[in-house]
Amino acid sequence: MEILEAIYTRRSIRKFAMGDVSDDTLQKILRAGMSAPNSGGQRLWQFLVVRNQGQMEKVIDAYPYAKMLRDVPIAIIVCFDQSREKYEERWQMDCATASLNILLAAHGLGLGGVWLEIYPIAERVDAIRESFGMPEHVVPFAVFGIGHPAEEKPALDRYEESLVHYDYW
Amino acid sequence: MEILEAIYTRRSIRKFAMGDVSDDTLQKILRAGMSAPNSGGQRLWQFLVVRNQGQMEKVIDAYPYAKMLRDVPIAIIVCFDQSREKYEERWQMDCATASLNILLAAHGLGLGGVWLEIYPIAERVDAIRESFGMPEHVVPFAVFGIGHPAEEKPALDRYEESLVHYDYW
Repeated sequence: MEILEAIYTRRSIRKFAMGDVSDDTLQKILRAGMSAPNSGGQRLWQFLVVRNQGQMEKVIDAYPYAKMLRDVPIAIIVCFDQSREKYEERWQMDCATASLNILLAAHGLGLGGVWLEIYPIAERVDAIRESFGMPEHVVPFAVFGIGHPAEEKPALDRYEESLVHYDYW
Repeated sequence: MEILEAIYTRRSIRKFAMGDVSDDTLQKILRAGMSAPNSGGQRLWQFLVVRNQGQMEKVIDAYPYAKMLRDVPIAIIVCFDQSREKYEERWQMDCATASLNILLAAHGLGLGGVWLEIYPIAERVDAIRESFGMPEHVVPFAVFGIGHPAEEKPALDRYEESLVHYDYW
């Protein structure tokens, strides 16, 4: 899929069909996440892949509306590893760029993805950290359910000229 | 350009050749920015396009190392408009996803881009806000110089298996 088409047609997918995601496809998606621009090349991210159904249920339990994760073969938890941080106050942007590359790569591979936020909801951070045995210096940022889409959503034109300024505000 | 190729081959471009960026291309890039996933669809971003050379010099003045902006036909300042914020503590991630889509779209269109951070450096936020007459509720987040690349950088394989965990930390 062409890059602009991928960017313009990506939608949040919340209904999934049966079907696995191969290790090769998973690695392509993770490689996309790790290819994201980040502050000073600090690469402060880590990734936890959820495939075990019992572990997936723990994720679902942390949300009021994450039951669609029962239908995905994998979820990826993007995490901030504070022990890798070199430049303060940039971790949210760095985790966000890795996250978007994961969603775009999944879409380009014909899969669908949903972004379920963890941070900044403290109870969710605590619940996910505990469920997966993450150390205190790790902050789970967001969960991405990834699988075969069972819904087709039309592309939206989200361009708004009123949000663009030229040379002066 | 195919989406995975675009993600894997994108590099920060700091040397630019002569050549304009058409209004149509600029709009494609801005549309990509506005197509980014964002928290609860709050779309709290705004975009300031710098084309005037005098205004470009004001951006350059805010940095120790932004002279490459003399060689780009456009720069885009991604801004957080606090008056549009619905969900607190998410604006950095929302601005970061818009920013990445801008860089990926530029790359896909054969252009090069460089991410110059503004936030969280307070003096830069103040300098840019003042230079462009931005109101107090607007936080300039980052500047993207975009133009025709005058350097070719090889793709880097940034995959690190040690950053991936499976089902347990």
